[in-house]
Amino acid sequence: MTDAQHRFTDAERDAVYRAIELRRDVRHFTPSPPLPDGQLERLLQAAHQAPSVGLMQPWRFMRLSVPAWRERLVPLVEAERLRTAEALGERGATFMQLKVEGLRDCAELLAVVLAPDDGTVFGRRSLPREMAWCSAACAVQNLWLAARAEHLGMGWVSMFDPVELARVLRLPTGSEPLGLLCLGPVDRFYDQPMLEETGWRHRRPLNDMLMETPRDAD
Amino acid sequence: MTDAQHRFTDAERDAVYRAIELRRDVRHFTPSPPLPDGQLERLLQAAHQAPSVGLMQPWRFMRLSVPAWRERLVPLVEAERLRTAEALGERGATFMQLKVEGLRDCAELLAVVLAPDDGTVFGRRSLPREMAWCSAACAVQNLWLAARAEHLGMGWVSMFDPVELARVLRLPTGSEPLGLLCLGPVDRFYDQPMLEETGWRHRRPLNDMLMETPRDAD
Repeated sequence: MTDAQHRFTDAERDAVYRAIELRRDVRHFTPSPPLPDGQLERLLQAAHQAPSVGLMQPWRFMRLSVPAWRERLVPLVEAERLRTAEALGERGATFMQLKVEGLRDCAELLAVVLAPDDGTVFGRRSLPREMAWCSAACAVQNLWLAARAEHLGMGWVSMFDPVELARVLRLPTGSEPLGLLCLGPVDRFYDQPMLEETGWRHRRPLNDMLMETPRDAD
Repeated sequence: MTDAQHRFTDAERDAVYRAIELRRDVRHFTPSPPLPDGQLERLLQAAHQAPSVGLMQPWRFMRLSVPAWRERLVPLVEAERLRTAEALGERGATFMQLKVEGLRDCAELLAVVLAPDDGTVFGRRSLPREMAWCSAACAVQNLWLAARAEHLGMGWVSMFDPVELARVLRLPTGSEPLGLLCLGPVDRFYDQPMLEETGWRHRRPLNDMLMETPRDAD
């Protein structure tokens, strides 16, 4: 490709920023038929184009959209929701009023799974588990943004006992489930993150995210 | 916003997919002055728009672009590069010929840091470290894609001893460095991942990433 072919127009650049800005963690889905195969494949291909440490590509996806699987997974998430409410103490009652997943209503339900460690050393000798998780998370973020651009919502459900979920999904030894991804047409895209709209918690200004550089080497 | 305002045009959708497809982990930078503040702020704002479990927003960024800091960090990365080569055994010599970072040449050098655990329970009671790391990785992926749309390259360097790096950066107790991000104008965007171009490792087909669903609940 020439340099010009590598460049993004202003409109293209704005579209990327727009997807980043409007992407939401969605829990309210419009019950819909499964996505067309071509569309789901596009989304998974976007996930698979993520960076990964040492090119290890540790992400795996399992499609769990049939009703029988949803019914099997709902109680696992519900059990963890109750444990979460208990751990939250006095905020537990408020928490229980929030919708935290859309397992039954989403068009597609996927598990994102970390493959058994393949022994990759490049870039992860000192941070082996962390860099595998990070690579898988980059894949999920790609999927999220691609979905948003296709006017589909996604929710990353991480309320489950990972050992129990691995057992139910019959994951190979060493595999770890990172999330249940609810994906599909939505009632609406929240204008703000749902936890902010409901008053649970607020976003902080960018400035709070910037750490001062220690002065001693300046 | 109305439903129409929430939709992406075909051209916008294609731009998002294009950024996802053309993003690369870059190690070859064109030495350049620091990015204009407005541009760096746009990129960091994109990172800060990432999803996070329980809206914990655990990502922090430290700007380390002054030459003195680069010189201080290069030996840390070099030490880990040598340890990696040793751990790689017979592939160590080949590894040593690869360029694994652009700390001295990139326009901007940032550390991405995980904030000390704030005790967020929502969505991470059973996966506390994993979900914090995954949230921060989503922020980095946003930054990566935004940079690509701005015709800037980025490389995520994870070759360092995290305890040593935390000490040098004087991170607060409980904080963990996730990466050194090299960011800026590039010589060229690789057509394939650099590790693939150099023959180190190859991408696998999407089909290899799809796990079969256990049949027992169908």
